[in-house]
Amino acid sequence: MPRAVREQQMMDAAVRTFGQRGYRAASMDEIAELAGVSKPLVYLYLNSKEDLFTACIRRESESLMAAVQAGVEPGLPADRQLWDGLQAFFTHTARNPDGWAVLHQQARAQGEPFVGEVAVLREEIVAFVTGLIGAAAREAHSDPALPDRDVAGLAQALVGAAEALAGWANVTPGVSAREAATTLMNFSWAGLENLMHGRGWQPRGD
Amino acid sequence: MPRAVREQQMMDAAVRTFGQRGYRAASMDEIAELAGVSKPLVYLYLNSKEDLFTACIRRESESLMAAVQAGVEPGLPADRQLWDGLQAFFTHTARNPDGWAVLHQQARAQGEPFVGEVAVLREEIVAFVTGLIGAAAREAHSDPALPDRDVAGLAQALVGAAEALAGWANVTPGVSAREAATTLMNFSWAGLENLMHGRGWQPRGD
Repeated sequence: MPRAVREQQMMDAAVRTFGQRGYRAASMDEIAELAGVSKPLVYLYLNSKEDLFTACIRRESESLMAAVQAGVEPGLPADRQLWDGLQAFFTHTARNPDGWAVLHQQARAQGEPFVGEVAVLREEIVAFVTGLIGAAAREAHSDPALPDRDVAGLAQALVGAAEALAGWANVTPGVSAREAATTLMNFSWAGLENLMHGRGWQPRGD
Repeated sequence: MPRAVREQQMMDAAVRTFGQRGYRAASMDEIAELAGVSKPLVYLYLNSKEDLFTACIRRESESLMAAVQAGVEPGLPADRQLWDGLQAFFTHTARNPDGWAVLHQQARAQGEPFVGEVAVLREEIVAFVTGLIGAAAREAHSDPALPDRDVAGLAQALVGAAEALAGWANVTPGVSAREAATTLMNFSWAGLENLMHGRGWQPRGD
C-alpha cells in the first residue's frame, strides 16, 4: 500500500479519535489500532501526537474551506451565494462531525501551536464571508455604504452563528444541512422581524 | 479579613490567570502570588486546581447570566428586550474579558467536568433567548406560528453570533458594547437584506 494512502488512513483514525475523545484523552495506541497499523509506524509517518494533531487540523481545515468555496459560484446574486455556501458548510460538517469537533472544540483550547492553526481557518472563512457581504452591499448600491468595520462585525456574527448551528445540527436528531442553512438564511438575511411576520427568506429556482 | 472576601480575591486572581494563560499553563503559585496569599491557603480554601477552575466557571457563569437578566425588562417589546439583553451581555463581557475567556475558550475543551459546567450556562442562555424569540413570535401573532424547532435553531444562531462578536469586540480596538449590540441587532433583527438597503434596526426612545 502506498505511503500516502496509509497516511490518510492513519489520519482518518486520528480525526475520529481526537474528535470523539478530545486531544488529551486520545491515545496513540487507539489511533494505531483503529488504523490497523502498528504504533511505531504511526510515529514513523507522522512523528508525534502533536504533529499528528496539527496534520489533522490542517487537513480538516483545508477540506472544509474547499467544500465551501466549491459550493459558491461567484457571479450569482449575493443571497444565492450565501445560501449555496451555507448548504455546503452544513453538508460538510454533518458528514464530518469528528473533523468539525476537532476544529471547533478540540483545537481551540489546547494552546499554541494548535490555536494558531485553527485561527488561520477562521480568518479565511471570515475573509470569505466579509467579501461576500461586501459584494452584496455593492450589489445593492446602498447609500450610505456599509463601513468596513460594520461588514467585519457582520461577518463575525454570521460565522459565529454558523458554528453554533453546525454543533446544534450535529447533536439534534433529524436536522438536515438544508434545514440548518434555511434557519441561518432566515435569521441573517430576512431577519427576525420579517420572520415574526411570516416573511422568511425563500430560495429562488432551487 | 473574612474568609469570603479572601476567597473572592483568590478567585479574581484565578480568573485572570486562567483567562490569560489557559487552564493547563496556569500555575497555583502564580494565582497565589497575584492574590497576595500563600499557596497552602489557596489549597485550604479551594481544595485543588480542578475545584478552583470549577468555582471560577460557576462564578463567571452566574455573574454573566445575572447581568443579562438584570438588563432585560419582561413587559417591553421583543426587540427592545433583545437590545437591552445584548447591551448587557456585551458590556459584561467587555468588562470581564478574562472571565469571558474562561467560559468561552478555556472551559470548553478541557473535558469533563468543565465542559459540563459551561454547558449548563449555555443551555440557560439559549433557553432565555428561546423564550424571548418565542414571546416575540406570539407578540407578532404570526401565522403560521414559528415551530418550536425553528425557534430553537434561531436561538442557537443568535447565541453563536453573540459569542463570536464578544470575542471580536474584546480584541478589536475601540469596539464598544453598544456597537457590538447594534451590529447584532442589525444582523439578527433587521437582517442583511434590509441592511443592504440602508434599513438597519433603530433603537426607539433610547
